[in-house]
Amino acid sequence: MNIRLFSFAGGNTGSWRILKIQSITGDTLPAVERLNVFNGRSDEISGSGGWVLQGVTSNERYVQRSEKIELVARQPLLGRPEATLAALISLRKNMEWWSLTQDERRAIFEKDSRHIEIGMRYLPAVARRLHHCRDLGESEPFDFLTWFEYAPQDASAFDELLAKLRSSEEWKYVDREVDIRAIKD
Amino acid sequence: MNIRLFSFAGGNTGSWRILKIQSITGDTLPAVERLNVFNGRSDEISGSGGWVLQGVTSNERYVQRSEKIELVARQPLLGRPEATLAALISLRKNMEWWSLTQDERRAIFEKDSRHIEIGMRYLPAVARRLHHCRDLGESEPFDFLTWFEYAPQDASAFDELLAKLRSSEEWKYVDREVDIRAIKD
Repeated sequence: MNIRLFSFAGGNTGSWRILKIQSITGDTLPAVERLNVFNGRSDEISGSGGWVLQGVTSNERYVQRSEKIELVARQPLLGRPEATLAALISLRKNMEWWSLTQDERRAIFEKDSRHIEIGMRYLPAVARRLHHCRDLGESEPFDFLTWFEYAPQDASAFDELLAKLRSSEEWKYVDREVDIRAIKD
Repeated sequence: MNIRLFSFAGGNTGSWRILKIQSITGDTLPAVERLNVFNGRSDEISGSGGWVLQGVTSNERYVQRSEKIELVARQPLLGRPEATLAALISLRKNMEWWSLTQDERRAIFEKDSRHIEIGMRYLPAVARRLHHCRDLGESEPFDFLTWFEYAPQDASAFDELLAKLRSSEEWKYVDREVDIRAIKD
């Protein structure tokens, strides 16, 4: 197994209780009670109507050195005791996006959309781990799974962050997005 | 299954007869008689000592628009009747490479190593398909599998292309490379 593989299993087990599953664009995911987030592959689905999403952490696709230095200095780790709220934002981008060249995607991502700059404004409040699904061997329903953790007092800031990204040029290439919120209990 | 997944199965079946399996850097692969190249996943290994490598075709990681226009105009398709020779170049890059940021990798790839420019000089003689393995769910022995097809009269040009790339700055980050040659029969 790839040691960078993570699974997000929706069902009736796991330490995160689902608060909301909302489609922003395209088909939603079935309602489940709990979310189990773990390193590795899930061989079984817990509970009827359950589902598993998976992705691998990988090298950065767009971040440049000056940006990485600032990100590394400011970004918090996952698992902070006070960060009892979480979001799993599952995204798929359309074929137009994937047929762009690297320079074109970087220009939309940062010059036009300020993706890195916007995210930076919400550090160190919001912890984040990005997983790539598009180049897995199985056909996956999303291209990216991003897992966020934050404290209740930062929940409105997190919603503001999402609203800014969703109104960006980059999001015109998103053809499926499901927003899942959960609370640790 | 991911429709962009391809398998390279070394064993005793397949339309390509192995001419040579040579380690350039690191461990080699076991000797086999034939290579079966196909779209999809291999569930079984043919013959004792056989092996399967797999990877997915994906979006370009470094190519810019001006380069892509020239590549698309010049690159031939796989499967030309006269292209009876093939090479499977399997590469792994080290952790230093993967921890570089996008701008740093692009600078080594093209500004320092002229990877795209060198490859362009051998078009349309050499047809090529690149497969990514690093972000598959399974732990794979290589990061990239590149499949090349060329006619016998272009074999020495192909060796020259490889020699140029292997002497480049980019190749200092390669920590495993196996060079497999095959003939269609």
